Amino acid sequence: MNDYRTPNFSAGPATLPTAVLQKAQQEMLNWQNKGVSVMEISHRSSDYIAVAEQAEQDLRDLMEIPDNYKVLFLQGGATLQFSAIPLNLLQGTADYLDTGAWSSKAFKEAQRYEKLGLGKINLVSSSENNGYTSVSDISTWNLSENADYFHYCANETVHGVQIFDVPNLENDTPIIADMSSCILSQKIDVSKFGMIYAGAQKNIGPAGLVIVIIREDLLGKASEWCPNLLKYQTQAQANSMSNTPATYSWYLSGLVFAWLKEQGGLDAIAKQNHYKAKLLYNTIDNSSLYSNCVDARYRSIMNVPFFLNNDKDLSSAVNQEFLRQADKEGLLFLKGHRMLGGMRASIYNAVEVEWVEKLVEFMQDFEKTKA
Amino acid sequence: MNDYRTPNFSAGPATLPTAVLQKAQQEMLNWQNKGVSVMEISHRSSDYIAVAEQAEQDLRDLMEIPDNYKVLFLQGGATLQFSAIPLNLLQGTADYLDTGAWSSKAFKEAQRYEKLGLGKINLVSSSENNGYTSVSDISTWNLSENADYFHYCANETVHGVQIFDVPNLENDTPIIADMSSCILSQKIDVSKFGMIYAGAQKNIGPAGLVIVIIREDLLGKASEWCPNLLKYQTQAQANSMSNTPATYSWYLSGLVFAWLKEQGGLDAIAKQNHYKAKLLYNTIDNSSLYSNCVDARYRSIMNVPFFLNNDKDLSSAVNQEFLRQADKEGLLFLKGHRMLGGMRASIYNAVEVEWVEKLVEFMQDFEKTKA
Repeated sequence: MNDYRTPNFSAGPATLPTAVLQKAQQEMLNWQNKGVSVMEISHRSSDYIAVAEQAEQDLRDLMEIPDNYKVLFLQGGATLQFSAIPLNLLQGTADYLDTGAWSSKAFKEAQRYEKLGLGKINLVSSSENNGYTSVSDISTWNLSENADYFHYCANETVHGVQIFDVPNLENDTPIIADMSSCILSQKIDVSKFGMIYAGAQKNIGPAGLVIVIIREDLLGKASEWCPNLLKYQTQAQANSMSNTPATYSWYLSGLVFAWLKEQGGLDAIAKQNHYKAKLLYNTIDNSSLYSNCVDARYRSIMNVPFFLNNDKDLSSAVNQEFLRQADKEGLLFLKGHRMLGGMRASIYNAVEVEWVEKLVEFMQDFEKTKA
Repeated sequence: MNDYRTPNFSAGPATLPTAVLQKAQQEMLNWQNKGVSVMEISHRSSDYIAVAEQAEQDLRDLMEIPDNYKVLFLQGGATLQFSAIPLNLLQGTADYLDTGAWSSKAFKEAQRYEKLGLGKINLVSSSENNGYTSVSDISTWNLSENADYFHYCANETVHGVQIFDVPNLENDTPIIADMSSCILSQKIDVSKFGMIYAGAQKNIGPAGLVIVIIREDLLGKASEWCPNLLKYQTQAQANSMSNTPATYSWYLSGLVFAWLKEQGGLDAIAKQNHYKAKLLYNTIDNSSLYSNCVDARYRSIMNVPFFLNNDKDLSSAVNQEFLRQADKEGLLFLKGHRMLGGMRASIYNAVEVEWVEKLVEFMQDFEKTKA
């Protein structure tokens, strides 16, 4: 553990690997001994294109992305994709699964385009009724025949609900997954998806970048209402440089991908992620003070919300005391999302094992003072 | 001049003030002694909100932005605004002035929405016929009565054409200006505009951020076809945090604004900008090798394209030799835009006077070898 680096459990923008920040720091004013920063050079220069291409290749290597998928480095975050997806792909009917705050937002934005006549938006299932603590069985889903796509959120950052297995729809409907807060946390089979997208500010890099991995047959279907820059085809043809991309964020993402490779790739990082999550959930389950009520099959290994037992008021004095003391101990950003209150520890790839161990120790010590 | 910083004339992403990069470098891993980078903290934290608000305030101070204007820090670059503007504001007719590559692009994107029936797009004048070397007199413009807005580009980065005076339309039509490559280069009267927007990667900060300054009465008029995140009203109500903004780019912009204040504000920087431009244009005009054919009244003080006289082929051997030698001398990114060929020196705020002096000297020396 680096003495000067504070354990940071922010849900996003989130902590980045120390080695990545050190490299960025070192290169800040004099990149590749050129006397300029990488953020000061043209995105059309051969030097920058080499950076961009290497980042894409490293991501392709890490995720084993098949050749018939384009990888786009875009702006606007995952939220702008909530609009871009129906504008690019909705023609008949699209299916949406609602398992928490983010998939619900995506569904609502798509519904706006249904009202405008772009197509039909069908809710296959919602777990709002159980407070987004579980995911209904696929056999109960109201799936459309021949949907343009099926959309879901693989990890709900607010509610801490993760869907580990790719839904087996038993048909050819392209599956679109928002993986903002779980991309690169473990291996997935990209070939099962029509499209994967992820805001960068959790497991990829700084905020202001969103990565779209899209199967080529889904390009070129956009509605004319789609802003030109949001058309996947436009950006795919221009290698994400239809206009000036977020060059420095792209560069930083490349450093993160290179770091991930050095860590041993996704299997190695997944092992560490599962270990960190287990530490936290075990502490919660073995405690009489803390609780997490997410169905064990869907407990996120990236975002762990937890609450004080017997504490109806989620911003109670004890809750505040926990957060204040944690902050004092140098355990940052444990406050729960404003929708839920309580606490949340986000334990992305760059969160060090020692940080989680320190958090768990703090939780146990705090509980003793309340016994 | 810093010995290790190379003169950089990139049109964008462009050079940033050395002092800004030094501060960013110093704070990279340990911002405000918190043991985290500013890019690793939640945009909803009070620490980050203080950064965001200070940046906005400094920009307001520098540009003397009236209170009835909102300042938004968005993503997608100026190009995404080419779509957002008609989607937010077109209801009847909008007027477009075409004075170069960028205003032409904006016009064409707006025309797509005319075809969809959102409203009428009226071209008031185009200088395409004179190769975008001048701007027609306002008395000849085909202005609409009661237009929703009038759009123009205050500085054409590719063609080096700058409109210094705000067009006096003699009516209440809101004027919208793309100021991507001239914002903050000299004082302007913001109250004469309905909206000003600017991609950051020239005079503001790194690529991946676009600033929108919009008069409040223009909010709330968006078409339902407008992606929610692109609605100015949505972002104004959320202080540009409807979703996670590009936090690190916003922070860097704040450092640039603070630096500009330290330089003495816009009057001081304008004096320097005019001096740098004069150095370059004088060198060109006093030479028999170089030429710039832009009407003297509209010659940009930010982007100076120039060509070799009697050189029909704009990528001739001599042209290539100039660029190769310049690069060898450590004068970077002087290659002209691919649309025009030749050379271009972008001399934004952060381009040091000494760099321009060095360039001018190089140009004179090169000319001697060709005499």
